[in-house]
Amino acid sequence: MRLTRRRWMVAAGAAAAAAALPRPLEAARAESPDLPPALAPEVFRERQARLRAAARARGIDVLFVTPSTNLSYAANISMGRSERLTALLLFVDGPASLLTPAFEEENVRRGAVVDDIATWKEEEDPAPKAARLLSRVRTVGIEGSTAYGTAARLLAAAPNLQAQDAAGLFDALRAVKSAEEQAFLKEAGRRTNLAISATHKRLARGMTESEAANVLEQEFQRQRVHGDGLVQFGPSSALPHGGPGDRRLATGDVVLIDAGCRVRGYTSDVTRTVSFGPPADEVRKVYAIVDRAQAAGIEALRAGAAAESVDRAARSVIEDAGYGTFFTHRLGHGLGLDGHETPYLVRGNAVLLAAGNTVTIEPGIYLPGKFGVRIEDDYGALDSAPPSSLSARPGELVVLGS
Amino acid sequence: MRLTRRRWMVAAGAAAAAAALPRPLEAARAESPDLPPALAPEVFRERQARLRAAARARGIDVLFVTPSTNLSYAANISMGRSERLTALLLFVDGPASLLTPAFEEENVRRGAVVDDIATWKEEEDPAPKAARLLSRVRTVGIEGSTAYGTAARLLAAAPNLQAQDAAGLFDALRAVKSAEEQAFLKEAGRRTNLAISATHKRLARGMTESEAANVLEQEFQRQRVHGDGLVQFGPSSALPHGGPGDRRLATGDVVLIDAGCRVRGYTSDVTRTVSFGPPADEVRKVYAIVDRAQAAGIEALRAGAAAESVDRAARSVIEDAGYGTFFTHRLGHGLGLDGHETPYLVRGNAVLLAAGNTVTIEPGIYLPGKFGVRIEDDYGALDSAPPSSLSARPGELVVLGS
Repeated sequence: MRLTRRRWMVAAGAAAAAAALPRPLEAARAESPDLPPALAPEVFRERQARLRAAARARGIDVLFVTPSTNLSYAANISMGRSERLTALLLFVDGPASLLTPAFEEENVRRGAVVDDIATWKEEEDPAPKAARLLSRVRTVGIEGSTAYGTAARLLAAAPNLQAQDAAGLFDALRAVKSAEEQAFLKEAGRRTNLAISATHKRLARGMTESEAANVLEQEFQRQRVHGDGLVQFGPSSALPHGGPGDRRLATGDVVLIDAGCRVRGYTSDVTRTVSFGPPADEVRKVYAIVDRAQAAGIEALRAGAAAESVDRAARSVIEDAGYGTFFTHRLGHGLGLDGHETPYLVRGNAVLLAAGNTVTIEPGIYLPGKFGVRIEDDYGALDSAPPSSLSARPGELVVLGS
Repeated sequence: MRLTRRRWMVAAGAAAAAAALPRPLEAARAESPDLPPALAPEVFRERQARLRAAARARGIDVLFVTPSTNLSYAANISMGRSERLTALLLFVDGPASLLTPAFEEENVRRGAVVDDIATWKEEEDPAPKAARLLSRVRTVGIEGSTAYGTAARLLAAAPNLQAQDAAGLFDALRAVKSAEEQAFLKEAGRRTNLAISATHKRLARGMTESEAANVLEQEFQRQRVHGDGLVQFGPSSALPHGGPGDRRLATGDVVLIDAGCRVRGYTSDVTRTVSFGPPADEVRKVYAIVDRAQAAGIEALRAGAAAESVDRAARSVIEDAGYGTFFTHRLGHGLGLDGHETPYLVRGNAVLLAAGNTVTIEPGIYLPGKFGVRIEDDYGALDSAPPSSLSARPGELVVLGS
């Protein structure tokens, strides 16, 4: 049955799930004394008040929130998806009620910030039970990552209920981070910088990318956080979605490490590109362009700016240098409880940034068959520039001894 | 950005995601020479033909399949969920078309069994593009684990499209396993038995549950498969959803290990309960009851039997012995590409089993504060009893030296 260690795998792709070696949920829940203190229950009550206000403004009577980072955000409940229904029913004019399998109740009570818990038994169908709990409301806002089949079964059991997609509602609230949330991100960024630097010191000629990735994980474990990353050597660094992992490190290789860890559930995302031994002239040249592009992006990041304008500011630097076609992805993305969340810094996204938005700024140039350079740091948008740094920029190209 | 190693974490609960240390997708994709050969492309073509026929019978014109085990099943595409839309559009009277981000195309082409690939650029909104591809059909069947928000955006962009939940359609086809699929499950079961036995030999007094779980993972790695499990000692074995992990092994403890691994994406699920040192009389007694209950469940498992009748057969043994209130969960669940899938062996489920269904048979008795015993094996239903064993039953209680 193995619910605790593996139930989150149910919804993941088969190979991805097969590739994962999870630790017990309990380990993630355990207090680490050297981390910033966890959020107080009042924080979740305030979030629930904001969620209710946002729902009311959209004509939604109740939010239906299944296991996801949105459930973590709303009620401090971190559990994986499974085929057994768990849902927070956050009534706009009523309680925060949780519906969960009876045998989960004890687990869920730890830390959950809700008003009451209803349970269903193994032999029951939970959809009619959920429908009964929703019998006095008209419009349900469904948390966006909820399985379509779950929503369909609920709506079949409650045919008078109107459904709305509540994805945007959660996104908008979560995109603005509190000082505490930003402190978590900054601590995650700090530990990621440390883990990458420590990994750089342990690189040796002939080591494979996979071996270096294992070293990186050890360096996160040493700091008592869960983190990992992607390591790419030489030509494989030109593949922005990751190489095969078996390349062996050679003198003169570019080393690209893209890594992150979680602090209180909030994730960092940092990329460092260095040279293992003396770099080719073109590596130095490209690195300097990417560094200037990142600086331009950071300079453009402030509350009130359009998301696409930040992308544009960084992209212009790379285009003007003649490498525009080799910067093949968006400039960055929001980060918080999810590694990718709103706002997205991408052409076509005219949304105006707000103070408290936290994003990656990660320009890159990828020269197929040769090498790639990406520099990625995390920043919080402020009302006035410059933005707050959540991970320390590296400055000039680091050259490791080989 | 870290797509390759971490993108599957996006949809998982925060703590679960934080707790996971994934390996690269590439590692999962790599061929292991000692595993049974991977499925041939023709197998996926046959599955697509069966999916089309099932869709047609329900009045569905096209299946919309986002990253999930259903996408793996339909087109041999194993990728994690992300905020970027990837979907297979399996037209009942047309091609198997894949829509994916442009920068994923190269990754996806490896192994994917589709007729054509359409891509969208980083700055595009994929929903209108998907809607255009669906402009000549009326009814879309949405794969059940697809995010509600994804479906809502698609349907907003294609207002004339009717949506149906296709969860049941996939479940029904996947529940009947081919001989090849059963061979994968059997090989996964064999390796799980080996990993658990090897872990038993390495247990030592004072070892924590977490340390033993790490030993178990090593024993899977030694066999070149990805597997893991839950380890519970003494009173924590009475918690069917997992203990805290820091209990130290003492002489006379019950040791419960619930583990599984993947072979070609197909997962085993096996539980062994043993005694570390001489067991108390009650442990012997309870073990014998659970063993008889499992035997009764296996005896009742055959094509044509109702799912609930198998649960009942095993449960009666435990109830008759006076321990009915301590068997707190269903008897078992289907397993295949997902660790939990249909059919579920649970009271109230009158569905008739079919030849080719593969399920766990896992009765348990949990005595709070004392100990728990669960014995779990995997079986395939056949037209004639007895069912085919996918993991070797242990027989009598094993007593380890302490």
